[in-house]
Order: sequence, then C-alpha cells, then structure tokens
Amino acid sequence: MTTHSAKPEDKRTRILNAAIHVFAENGFFHSKVSDVAKAAGVADGTIYLYFKNKDDLLISLFENRMALALSSLEEAVAAAEGPEGKLRALIRRQFELVAETPEVAEVLTVELRQSSKFMKEYSPAAFADLLKLIAGIVREGLADGSFSTNIPVTHAARMLFGLLDEVTLNWLLSKDKFDITEATDWVVAFILGGLKQGK
Amino acid sequence: MTTHSAKPEDKRTRILNAAIHVFAENGFFHSKVSDVAKAAGVADGTIYLYFKNKDDLLISLFENRMALALSSLEEAVAAAEGPEGKLRALIRRQFELVAETPEVAEVLTVELRQSSKFMKEYSPAAFADLLKLIAGIVREGLADGSFSTNIPVTHAARMLFGLLDEVTLNWLLSKDKFDITEATDWVVAFILGGLKQGK
Repeated sequence: MTTHSAKPEDKRTRILNAAIHVFAENGFFHSKVSDVAKAAGVADGTIYLYFKNKDDLLISLFENRMALALSSLEEAVAAAEGPEGKLRALIRRQFELVAETPEVAEVLTVELRQSSKFMKEYSPAAFADLLKLIAGIVREGLADGSFSTNIPVTHAARMLFGLLDEVTLNWLLSKDKFDITEATDWVVAFILGGLKQGK
Repeated sequence: MTTHSAKPEDKRTRILNAAIHVFAENGFFHSKVSDVAKAAGVADGTIYLYFKNKDDLLISLFENRMALALSSLEEAVAAAEGPEGKLRALIRRQFELVAETPEVAEVLTVELRQSSKFMKEYSPAAFADLLKLIAGIVREGLADGSFSTNIPVTHAARMLFGLLDEVTLNWLLSKDKFDITEATDWVVAFILGGLKQGK
C-alpha cells in the first residue's frame, strides 16, 4: 500500500474502485461513506476532498464507468459494418461488459435507480451519449433502407435502451443466471424485426 | 371527515390513497410516515396499525395498485381478438392507465425503483402476474402462427415489459410530454415486428 505517496488522481480512482465493490455488495442506501473509505484504505475525511457527499460519489462513479463503457461500445460499433452489423456489435458488447464486470453493471443498473438525486434531478451526459450512439445507428439504417419504421428516432433509441436495460436487470437479479452473451442473438433478432416492420 | 367512525378498511384505503400523493410529490425517500398520516388525516400511530413501516406501506401500495392495473389490463386483453389484437389492447390500456393516473404510474415506475427492499428482497406476485399475462399472449401467438420467434417466451415477456416500462418512464420524467396513448401504434408495430421476425 502506498497510501501516503499516492498521487491525487490515484487516490480518486482507488476511492471509485472501492465504491463499486461496496455499493454492489451492500446497496447504495445501506453503504456508508466510511465503508468506502475503509475499503479504499483512506481516512473518512479524504473522501470529502474528492466528493461532496455519497450522491456525488455515485454520480462520479456513474460518469467514470459510463465513459469507459461508452468508449468500449463506440469502439465495437466503429469496427462493425452497416447498420445491422453495428446494432449487433453494440448489443453483443453491452452484454459482454455486463458478464465481464457484473459489479459495475449492478451499480449502473440497479443501484443508480435507487438514488432519487439521480432519477429526478440529474441528467447524465453519458446516458445522453449512449442514446445518441443508438439513435445514430437507427438513423443510418433508415437512411440506407436497412430499417423502415415511422417511430421517431429518439423514441426508438429509448425503446432499444429499455429493452437492453431490462435484459441486463433480469440477468443481474436472477439467481439462476442464463447466458447473457447468448441472449445477443434473441435481442438482435427482436430489435431488427421491430425496426424493419415497425410501420 | 368521518375519521373516528371510519371502518378499518376505509382507513387503510385512505392511507394508501394519501401515500400515493405524498410519494409521487416528495419521492419515497424524502417522504415521512408522518407526512402520509397528515395527508390521510390520521394520527401517526394509526399508520402502524395497518403497516409495519414505510417499506411495508410502499409494498402494500404496490400490491394494491398493481392488482387494480392488472385487472384493467386483463379485462382489455379478454375483450380483444387474437394474439395481435390482445397485445395491442394490453399496450393501449397500459398507456391509457399511465396517462389517466400519472401519480400512480410515478409511484409504480419511479419510486419503487428506489426502494432497496423492493428491488432486491421483494418478489411481487403482481409483477409475476403481469409477466404471465404478457407471456400468455406470446405463447398464444406462437401456437396459432401469428408470431414466430425462437426467443424463450419468459425472456420475450421480460423484453416487452422492459420496453413498455422505459416508454412509461421516459414519459413520466420528460418535462415536455409527448402523447403516450399515440405511442401505442409505434410500440405495437415495433413489438409485432420483433415477434414476427425474431428467428
């Protein structure tokens, strides 16, 4: 442990990493800032050098992990060909991320819903970026004729997000886990059907 | 006001009705049992004659309103013809209920997500019944050839629920409300496309 010699950025990262584990294990509302401090190996007061309060810690965590997830999704989409291929790549990567880092998915999907600040007062830029990424693929598919629907693109993006989010939530909360990466094929088939016949 | 002569069932109903307004306005976590008591016109202690605590009040409220919503959805489905017609009837009724009683939808959709007890420990029977209702329509459509998909029925039901839930949530949280009953057509077209091409 290099608690005293750690650079400020390292300490902030260490606190965020600790918060993921603490929130995923105990739930956001049952977690105390002092639990996070203990798990991060810092003094309670140190947390408040980087974060205003527990809500701010959750929001910072969300922004940090969503930015990482979004880069990964964007990378997968950029490497794929055509609107169908891009949609498939996005969905596969999303479920891979969930399967690889369930603790992060737990915090992003389950715990965040329990923060009233987040649900009602905070409009996360990263969430808007995810919707934009999805909407961009839908728009591209409408332009090149791959998709045909009269659903407004922003609503279609929301619907796709809701579907992916529910499959993720179902997987996270189910005791007997199904193979979420295998679910990619079902979800892609359903969404492609919806985007092609939806008019 | 007939506070003193009210029958126990009436008082319980009055507390539940008051709780809807209080939770929808202030949010579950910022609401106090005493706020609900005040709104219901009963003494704080009276609440505890009917409900163990605030979580129990929320769960009772959920069960009560979900049972009402479910009856209404079942009625709409029973009156419709064929799997496509039933799916359309269910979706239309769901969005009508949201538009008619947004406070109830707010509590069922937004506030419940913020109760850790609900999300992690409580498996509501009414929610399982809703999934069964959706799954039954999908199964019927597969049997008579209206739908064709290799998505396991329980997963398809979850996906449809997630989609409807996200459209509802989007409407509840958006400041500039779109016409949610008009959204029925988009959502139905998308889901029918998904259920017909998903294989």
